[in-house]
Amino acid sequence: MNAKTEAIHLIDPGVLPARFANVRAHSAALAEPLSAEDCCAQSMTDASPIKWHLAHTTWFFETFILERFERDFQPFDPAFRVLFNSYYNGVGDRHARPHRGLLTRPSLDEVLAYRRDVDERMRKLLSPAYALVLDDMAQVADLVELGLQHEQQHQELMMTDLLHLFSCNPLKPAYANRPPPSASEQPLQWQAIDAGIVTIGSTGGFCFDNELPRHRQFVEPYLLASRLVTNGEYLAFIEDGGYRKPALWLSEGWDWVQREGIAHPLYWQLLEESDGQQAFGHAGSGWHVFGLHGLQPLDPHAAATQISWFEADAYARWAGARLPTEAEWEHAAEQAMLSDESILTQLFGVCWQWTSSSYAPYPGYAPVAGALGEYNGKFMANQYVLRGSSCVTPDGHSRRSYRNFFPSAARWQFSGIRLAR
Amino acid sequence: MNAKTEAIHLIDPGVLPARFANVRAHSAALAEPLSAEDCCAQSMTDASPIKWHLAHTTWFFETFILERFERDFQPFDPAFRVLFNSYYNGVGDRHARPHRGLLTRPSLDEVLAYRRDVDERMRKLLSPAYALVLDDMAQVADLVELGLQHEQQHQELMMTDLLHLFSCNPLKPAYANRPPPSASEQPLQWQAIDAGIVTIGSTGGFCFDNELPRHRQFVEPYLLASRLVTNGEYLAFIEDGGYRKPALWLSEGWDWVQREGIAHPLYWQLLEESDGQQAFGHAGSGWHVFGLHGLQPLDPHAAATQISWFEADAYARWAGARLPTEAEWEHAAEQAMLSDESILTQLFGVCWQWTSSSYAPYPGYAPVAGALGEYNGKFMANQYVLRGSSCVTPDGHSRRSYRNFFPSAARWQFSGIRLAR
Amino acid sequence: MNAKTEAIHLIDPGVLPARFANVRAHSAALAEPLSAEDCCAQSMTDASPIKWHLAHTTWFFETFILERFERDFQPFDPAFRVLFNSYYNGVGDRHARPHRGLLTRPSLDEVLAYRRDVDERMRKLLSPAYALVLDDMAQVADLVELGLQHEQQHQELMMTDLLHLFSCNPLKPAYANRPPPSASEQPLQWQAIDAGIVTIGSTGGFCFDNELPRHRQFVEPYLLASRLVTNGEYLAFIEDGGYRKPALWLSEGWDWVQREGIAHPLYWQLLEESDGQQAFGHAGSGWHVFGLHGLQPLDPHAAATQISWFEADAYARWAGARLPTEAEWEHAAEQAMLSDESILTQLFGVCWQWTSSSYAPYPGYAPVAGALGEYNGKFMANQYVLRGSSCVTPDGHSRRSYRNFFPSAARWQFSGIRLAR
Amino acid sequence: MNAKTEAIHLIDPGVLPARFANVRAHSAALAEPLSAEDCCAQSMTDASPIKWHLAHTTWFFETFILERFERDFQPFDPAFRVLFNSYYNGVGDRHARPHRGLLTRPSLDEVLAYRRDVDERMRKLLSPAYALVLDDMAQVADLVELGLQHEQQHQELMMTDLLHLFSCNPLKPAYANRPPPSASEQPLQWQAIDAGIVTIGSTGGFCFDNELPRHRQFVEPYLLASRLVTNGEYLAFIEDGGYRKPALWLSEGWDWVQREGIAHPLYWQLLEESDGQQAFGHAGSGWHVFGLHGLQPLDPHAAATQISWFEADAYARWAGARLPTEAEWEHAAEQAMLSDESILTQLFGVCWQWTSSSYAPYPGYAPVAGALGEYNGKFMANQYVLRGSSCVTPDGHSRRSYRNFFPSAARWQFSGIRLAR
Repeated sequence: MNAKTEAIHLIDPGVLPARFANVRAHSAALAEPLSAEDCCAQSMTDASPIKWHLAHTTWFFETFILERFERDFQPFDPAFRVLFNSYYNGVGDRHARPHRGLLTRPSLDEVLAYRRDVDERMRKLLSPAYALVLDDMAQVADLVELGLQHEQQHQELMMTDLLHLFSCNPLKPAYANRPPPSASEQPLQWQAIDAGIVTIGSTGGFCFDNELPRHRQFVEPYLLASRLVTNGEYLAFIEDGGYRKPALWLSEGWDWVQREGIAHPLYWQLLEESDGQQAFGHAGSGWHVFGLHGLQPLDPHAAATQISWFEADAYARWAGARLPTEAEWEHAAEQAMLSDESILTQLFGVCWQWTSSSYAPYPGYAPVAGALGEYNGKFMANQYVLRGSSCVTPDGHSRRSYRNFFPSAARWQFSGIRLAR
Repeated sequence: MNAKTEAIHLIDPGVLPARFANVRAHSAALAEPLSAEDCCAQSMTDASPIKWHLAHTTWFFETFILERFERDFQPFDPAFRVLFNSYYNGVGDRHARPHRGLLTRPSLDEVLAYRRDVDERMRKLLSPAYALVLDDMAQVADLVELGLQHEQQHQELMMTDLLHLFSCNPLKPAYANRPPPSASEQPLQWQAIDAGIVTIGSTGGFCFDNELPRHRQFVEPYLLASRLVTNGEYLAFIEDGGYRKPALWLSEGWDWVQREGIAHPLYWQLLEESDGQQAFGHAGSGWHVFGLHGLQPLDPHAAATQISWFEADAYARWAGARLPTEAEWEHAAEQAMLSDESILTQLFGVCWQWTSSSYAPYPGYAPVAGALGEYNGKFMANQYVLRGSSCVTPDGHSRRSYRNFFPSAARWQFSGIRLAR
Repeated sequence: MNAKTEAIHLIDPGVLPARFANVRAHSAALAEPLSAEDCCAQSMTDASPIKWHLAHTTWFFETFILERFERDFQPFDPAFRVLFNSYYNGVGDRHARPHRGLLTRPSLDEVLAYRRDVDERMRKLLSPAYALVLDDMAQVADLVELGLQHEQQHQELMMTDLLHLFSCNPLKPAYANRPPPSASEQPLQWQAIDAGIVTIGSTGGFCFDNELPRHRQFVEPYLLASRLVTNGEYLAFIEDGGYRKPALWLSEGWDWVQREGIAHPLYWQLLEESDGQQAFGHAGSGWHVFGLHGLQPLDPHAAATQISWFEADAYARWAGARLPTEAEWEHAAEQAMLSDESILTQLFGVCWQWTSSSYAPYPGYAPVAGALGEYNGKFMANQYVLRGSSCVTPDGHSRRSYRNFFPSAARWQFSGIRLAR
Repeated sequence: MNAKTEAIHLIDPGVLPARFANVRAHSAALAEPLSAEDCCAQSMTDASPIKWHLAHTTWFFETFILERFERDFQPFDPAFRVLFNSYYNGVGDRHARPHRGLLTRPSLDEVLAYRRDVDERMRKLLSPAYALVLDDMAQVADLVELGLQHEQQHQELMMTDLLHLFSCNPLKPAYANRPPPSASEQPLQWQAIDAGIVTIGSTGGFCFDNELPRHRQFVEPYLLASRLVTNGEYLAFIEDGGYRKPALWLSEGWDWVQREGIAHPLYWQLLEESDGQQAFGHAGSGWHVFGLHGLQPLDPHAAATQISWFEADAYARWAGARLPTEAEWEHAAEQAMLSDESILTQLFGVCWQWTSSSYAPYPGYAPVAGALGEYNGKFMANQYVLRGSSCVTPDGHSRRSYRNFFPSAARWQFSGIRLAR
């Protein structure tokens, strides 16, 4: 949470309640095409059930706002404080993460009732009639904004976690019943950027604490690719034996490839004419990619996604390039905004872009006090930063200073590659 | 399947179809109080979702009867052949067991439709109008009986697997909304039985292939307890430090107790006055037992259940006794039926009773031909036999020669202890 | 330990000390061709270093005899009581089994000095001059015999554990620097044995407690193979796809084969003309078998060894036969001794023979009191009995009632297959 | 390898051969107090046996120099090429790392003979009489220097790996038979350093490729502690519950502490008056630390070592400070050399000092070509940089630009903490 913004956010009866209602409604809308069963299952420890996301984002408002500011606070259900705590040691016990998929109770209907109850109490709290004192109003406004940004993060995870669940089902169900967008070919160009001291970090507006403080870094001259690596380019890497040549991989990545038997991105599948897949309705053969639109023939011009950091790094080495640092990425994105001549495309809204930067605190970083200080800082170990945003990032949740982060072997996100040299 | 019974089972239009309809309806009735979410989740690899049980038992009839005898057979859904195969290598591929809980599709409604479809096709096949040739009629009759016995086995597993799932939920939901039956105190007596050659194995009627051939064994004189070990007796074992004394345990059992930190039966829980459980609605403190009626205070006169073979063996050693062999158990059960003076109680309908016998083929055992030969024989390694039946065994599914079997650390069944000396 | 023999064993100054000296010297002689390094390493948790065997067998005499009967007992080194305890909870703590290979101290020389010290103190204790009271003399005599039998068991394990260690070394060292014996072809015949009540268990002389009490069992008529399964026969099983056909395997065995990628017995190796093995001095190609004589071309007439119970069971099923029960084996071996017409060969001295019998207590079995009661009884779970003896069983350590036992996947022993029908 | 130094290193008949002989002799001298058994064992996958270190450092010269430059090259033993390859995929197969301790053959004596053979061949190659062409002379000189630096790295690992092995032995043997040095109290002061563009990386002389290129970074103003964190200070952290407060730990570190049950540095041990340790000769109670001098009472003024990055980070947070970046450390060390007023002590020779910097390539980094390019670069993932050197770093092997690196949970090195703010 951005401490600098505390003073300027006041509860605007015309804006914050409406924004609250919109963001909250979007989560429910994402779950709308799904059955209660779809919303309950958990396909791996790293992912969570849709129902759990719906409840946890609600828990966030109940625990960090209502519990503190609502008069005569009564919990909706005292058990939920434990059940839907994600990782906040400061809040107390929590249900073990690998067992989130076993919570068939409370039901989806009960969780949706929980959402409606908290939404209604929040609506009252945010109304002028509630007459919070001024200092509390400012705090509430900041916490609501944090809660909404938090919910938007979970909206993205709802999609990536669901996609992983569906990928484990041999029926390969589609979330969206329309054909995927098709991509057109774009030449790869290189944007040249000069050496110098650059300044990165949030320039104002909402940001997470990890985007602060804005600070200086020195960058050497570099080139940044104008667009993302495509499926077609990544296929060339595979066909050149990329997954079988240890010289292309970091040592730990090579061990991972060997141990897990990895030979292509997570959701790629090579269908044989004769294989049993046909029985499941997938006509045709050749490379296919599973996504929110189901199993579809590989589109060579679309950006390669569901790529791990290890794979991104190996691809870059094979291509005679490297991944950018996060300072290089952010500085180039800032310049692109200011310049009519920038050739950079696909910075936002296609897929997150791995950087070579380990996720670490900026100089002078200080987490906020209390349990909310666990939001970001405690994950600054053995993870790598991704920049930009993806096709499942909600509208209004992208910004240049945003620092997403995942471990080096994570590959169920919409994560891809922008090269640097 | 009992080869001896092939000749005598013909399709009796008044009996088999009705029996088929009754057994099938019971499965659906067991699932009736549950939500689609309850029916989808899988709490461990050893257990399966209710929905999977409902589909797999249907798959059994479709694969082993309709596919072979129905004219113009068309599968309900070709994907189901793989999705709902349990362990029959002879049938082909199968969905990985640990991932059964990820099958949010097909939905519960679709699985219930699958059941109705197969039931209707089976009804037609079993009707006189279908005019099967006589030899096929005999085969179909035997296969139907096997399929119904198979379904009854799964009816029991539906209850034990569901109970395990609910035990993993901090809300500790109850399947049955009525109070559990209360047990009265019974003195422990010992039935004396003489040495001699005894004959065990099926005496006729339906049986699984593992109950054949009926054959001779020599037993030394022995004493068999008149009733099962109670919760109160088992609690005395715990309070005497039973779980902390290696001399009471088999070496592998002791390693298991140490490694898993086991200190009481699976569903026992010692509630403190002050602990957070109270928030979940469980008033009172002291030992409680989780069951189909929810979390209930321990009933000292009820039989101890959810006991592993390791625990049963350690308890028996502590009590100066031992577990009976399966020949001792079956012979005593036969004598009890023939004698007015037998003192043996609780042979059936309370909980399965561990024996000291490793699950092995009877002399001359031969599995049936084809994929159905995988039903029993291939599991004859590193498992121990249980005899009797339990409170969740369906009516009409208990018999003296029945051989249930589980690994030595399994403890989520209604399994308990009858002592011998 | 055989309680029945207590009364008859007295310390015979002419026999027991000499026998003690001979057995003890044999252990040291087995280690003689080895370096201190060879004696220190541990290749897996199931195996122990040679040095540990040398120390533990000495610990047995110091702990169970000297500590109790020696006047003014002083331990050779108090740390050894923990370091060289194998699994006796009754004796107290012990060094963790998987870390036995990390005990570079005490050195081999120190362990040999430990052996000499205990040997000398035992020599004195067993001499008439020590003047033990009569009752103690009987107990000591029994314990010495148990300790020597125990040491002979470890002499066999020294060879099997060393062989496993050497098998992990790409240099494939040979323990014995002479060519292996070559086997001649023998036809397979079947010995027919009648049904009836048979009596098995020790008939007198030393035995372990698990061989008692001698008791009755009923056996149906059976056929027993005249000799062991040969390498050539086992190769036919492999070449017929034996390791790739699930129908031949018990379910748990099939899982094991798949998970571990097993395709041949542990020490078999198929050399290619071109492979790197040639660089290590192994001329020639084709199937080879690693043994105490190094890596040698497969001898088709030699008995197949280093076979697990799972493999033995699968081979038997493939061959249209089965494994014998231990009662069948022991009864046939007794008859063979009494009859001039028995065709049974290779009962002893080639390799242990798996039976279908789970390792379980005989009716009326009672372990001896105290820590020595942990010798056998506590292992009676999830293991299978082997009968006979092997090429590395010391002279005088074979008997008909001997019950060896290992888990179903163990395959580093000299264990093979005798078929029954 | 530093490409910049290629031109200036020529084979100086008076210097390089002598340096070669000295460094090589030091490895053998380190092993001198140890038995062949001590040199063979491997206590964990991360550590290697002394014998393996002695052979692998020799393999380095044989593989990368003799194989390429020696006329009529014949390998000492062709099997050694595989056995003693550490991780160079470019050289071909290698013996599996976790099984290095099973190589009882070749013996220590054979490995020492291997060393003497390669030393003698290297001596000849480096003599003027060998008459290498000038270009080869330069390459050989660079490779020899790299090989010697490599050997010095292994000299440090020999000590840390041996210490870990000895720590697993309940006898707690001492490598050095003299008392450890005692430390005196030093006040903690803070060196202030200004913001600005600093230049880091090698300034000339030998360096590894990861120390290049020398390049610019921007640093904000910071304070660096004048000395290392002491045992006494670290004990205060423990006594304040440092290992039990999740708020002090990074999330992954907290999981590690909980999962592994970690409550103090690796080699710390709290002796009770009554515990069995006394039997092993360790009089006294209270905190002790195991080291090369055996188990010794904790010295409160000595630097805390065998600390993981997770622990260093948690300690720093508890102390209201942080770890320095590697740029901060190197720049301060450079300034200290140039200034008479620097208060920084213990930069070198006590223990390595964790930085907050993830191990990553410097801007413009390029590994050397061929298999030697695997030396450093491929490990640049999920590791953190340590700076300085330790008490077991060989003389002449410390420099300001040196980048040591280990994973965040590694704690068997002489690694400690220098705070920054």
